[in-house]
Amino acid sequence: MTVATATRPLDLLADFPAIPPGWAYLDTAATSQKPRPVLDAIARGYGETYATVHRGVYQRSADMTLAFEAARERVAAFIGGKPGETIFVRGATEGINLVATCWAGTQLEAGDRILLSTLEHHSNIVPWQMVAGKVGAEIDVIPLTPDHRIDLDAMAAMITPAHKLVALAHVSNVLGAVLDAKRACQIAHSVGARILLDGCQAVPRLPVDVAEIGCDFYVFSGHKLYGPTGIGVLWGRSELLEAMPPYQGGGSMIDRVTFARTTYAPPPGRFEAGTPHIVGVVGLHAAIDYVDGIGLARIHAHETALVTQARDALSQINSVRLFGPDDSAGIVSFAVGGVHPHDVATILDEGNVAIRAGHHCAQPLMDALGVPATARASFGVYNHAGDIAALVKGIERVTRIFG
Amino acid sequence: MTVATATRPLDLLADFPAIPPGWAYLDTAATSQKPRPVLDAIARGYGETYATVHRGVYQRSADMTLAFEAARERVAAFIGGKPGETIFVRGATEGINLVATCWAGTQLEAGDRILLSTLEHHSNIVPWQMVAGKVGAEIDVIPLTPDHRIDLDAMAAMITPAHKLVALAHVSNVLGAVLDAKRACQIAHSVGARILLDGCQAVPRLPVDVAEIGCDFYVFSGHKLYGPTGIGVLWGRSELLEAMPPYQGGGSMIDRVTFARTTYAPPPGRFEAGTPHIVGVVGLHAAIDYVDGIGLARIHAHETALVTQARDALSQINSVRLFGPDDSAGIVSFAVGGVHPHDVATILDEGNVAIRAGHHCAQPLMDALGVPATARASFGVYNHAGDIAALVKGIERVTRIFG
Repeated sequence: MTVATATRPLDLLADFPAIPPGWAYLDTAATSQKPRPVLDAIARGYGETYATVHRGVYQRSADMTLAFEAARERVAAFIGGKPGETIFVRGATEGINLVATCWAGTQLEAGDRILLSTLEHHSNIVPWQMVAGKVGAEIDVIPLTPDHRIDLDAMAAMITPAHKLVALAHVSNVLGAVLDAKRACQIAHSVGARILLDGCQAVPRLPVDVAEIGCDFYVFSGHKLYGPTGIGVLWGRSELLEAMPPYQGGGSMIDRVTFARTTYAPPPGRFEAGTPHIVGVVGLHAAIDYVDGIGLARIHAHETALVTQARDALSQINSVRLFGPDDSAGIVSFAVGGVHPHDVATILDEGNVAIRAGHHCAQPLMDALGVPATARASFGVYNHAGDIAALVKGIERVTRIFG
Repeated sequence: MTVATATRPLDLLADFPAIPPGWAYLDTAATSQKPRPVLDAIARGYGETYATVHRGVYQRSADMTLAFEAARERVAAFIGGKPGETIFVRGATEGINLVATCWAGTQLEAGDRILLSTLEHHSNIVPWQMVAGKVGAEIDVIPLTPDHRIDLDAMAAMITPAHKLVALAHVSNVLGAVLDAKRACQIAHSVGARILLDGCQAVPRLPVDVAEIGCDFYVFSGHKLYGPTGIGVLWGRSELLEAMPPYQGGGSMIDRVTFARTTYAPPPGRFEAGTPHIVGVVGLHAAIDYVDGIGLARIHAHETALVTQARDALSQINSVRLFGPDDSAGIVSFAVGGVHPHDVATILDEGNVAIRAGHHCAQPLMDALGVPATARASFGVYNHAGDIAALVKGIERVTRIFG
């Protein structure tokens, strides 16, 4: 008996008012639904305690500033970092672009190389292509193992001292494949490269500790962690952040502005120009309290059990092809015979099952899998065995319609 | 009798649950409180209709996508632009940085000049300094008139064909001074320069029509327009946006990604990498419906009446020095004898009056005014004569304490 099946399933659906009875929401990898404590924190933030931060002399603003910085401490503790290394951004995409522009854009030179993998999300490809084009760097791509993990043996064999930066998904948004992040960091550091991990699909699904993993940068989005839209986190090592120029200019990120010369604030303020997404930060705090209250180990066990149920049931349908490893974290990608994934998703929707169909912002992975798109079911704390049953029933209907 | 005094004051305080009875919230230029329709739209967005946009095949996501794009159309109509020219950003700061990076960063060359004014917010100074440093451009600064407006006669006299970009505040965040935006655009265009207007303090206070004004770029933040935090708008002329490279790389902004070559989507998608601040956009739609329901002309008249009352009353206190023109839009900056503005704000706070004290992210303006900081009272649709009375009573107490 595995840990997953030994754990009692979570029973949290009642916390999520946006999921009506009978709706199997299986698109949590795109964005998660929000529990009541997050809805309440947002409602309070706008409707009771609202004020700007960092600037107001009056009590309401001082209180909101305390709440804002308490959220930063909470986020930092959640991932094993320090508050001064924890930068609020719009989302993981902006976090990666910030590192690409301010770190890679100033540290890389012509002839340097960047190492990515075949399964990266576009947000962990395009920013590196943009900066590589500017500085004259080249990009190399780590292949996948036969069961669609990032092949770390291949990574170890191909990495060279010319590789200054490695950027990898901690958990694949398409396949759910979990990276051995600690080993990837060791391999990167063995040649002196820095490594960024895209933690979007990891932080809602696994316990994450950046100090233990040993990475240099870590990014994630709040809206995939049961939090608000428009807020995310970039964590980076102090010594790297200190040496980086600002990303955007504006209020709050300066020390002193004159037309002759402007000096900048230290991190994290240097990277947070303008009025921040105040209530987004407050809502993210509530989201982290919520998932930590459940426990990431329990969430991981719950989702792993759902993945196992789903893969077992789908593998018994002849026309279904499963992608990714069996121990995927909370995400199952598949194809149904010759049926286009969009048709699969449309038919499932008629049965009140919401899955995603498409390239999942990972076209190079689609190319590697030899498909234009996949169907993807992804799970959250609110999902249960009934959702898997509805999914399987829907796929059986697809096979009947197209059979 | 002016239009302002002829108009009945607005009576909307009951729409704003975060303003308790007896609290004079006079920091709307920093951020505005939120009316119930905005709170309701946000609560519905997260708690009833939540889903991702642009990607989901299922009905809930299709509905949210319609709501998201309907908000874009609403925003565009609100400022007289077209939806395809209307880009959702985090806030005005990001909007200006986007133009500085993607337009100025690719269009300006060494020797080109950028024209700003003395009263600009840091967010309309620092991004231009950053890009000027990169491309080797120089910055010139339009002085102020004796009553602290941007001196457009001086602008006309000093602008040359070397000036490729002008960036000015439509309404000063410190002084409330209103720019003759149409004339500023004509002067800029007379030498072939492009002009960006920072509309943060204008869109909540005046009717704005970018087509009538004739500007090239216009930016504003949602949170100052009675909307959510973390959302703002960049409007730009189609032909300029079309020619601009992307700002950030990621999901949604691409046409096709391969490791060999990535092609980008047309605007506005090209500039909206990653999952957007979905509920922020939905909330902004509700905020615009709210202010348009009142009518910007009525809001302007209401705030102008409050400014007149405040300036009249404060000017009768000997030790008070007023900054800015008498016809300021919704904002009054002042100094009280030798008292530091922070002390003024602290004493006012004890009397339940919230004003801002500081440099208001406009240090060059402070230098020009010859003060380290000002006290600033700024108004919104919820303010009323009682708030002015509380402000004046508080200032009288300040003069007694420090007298």
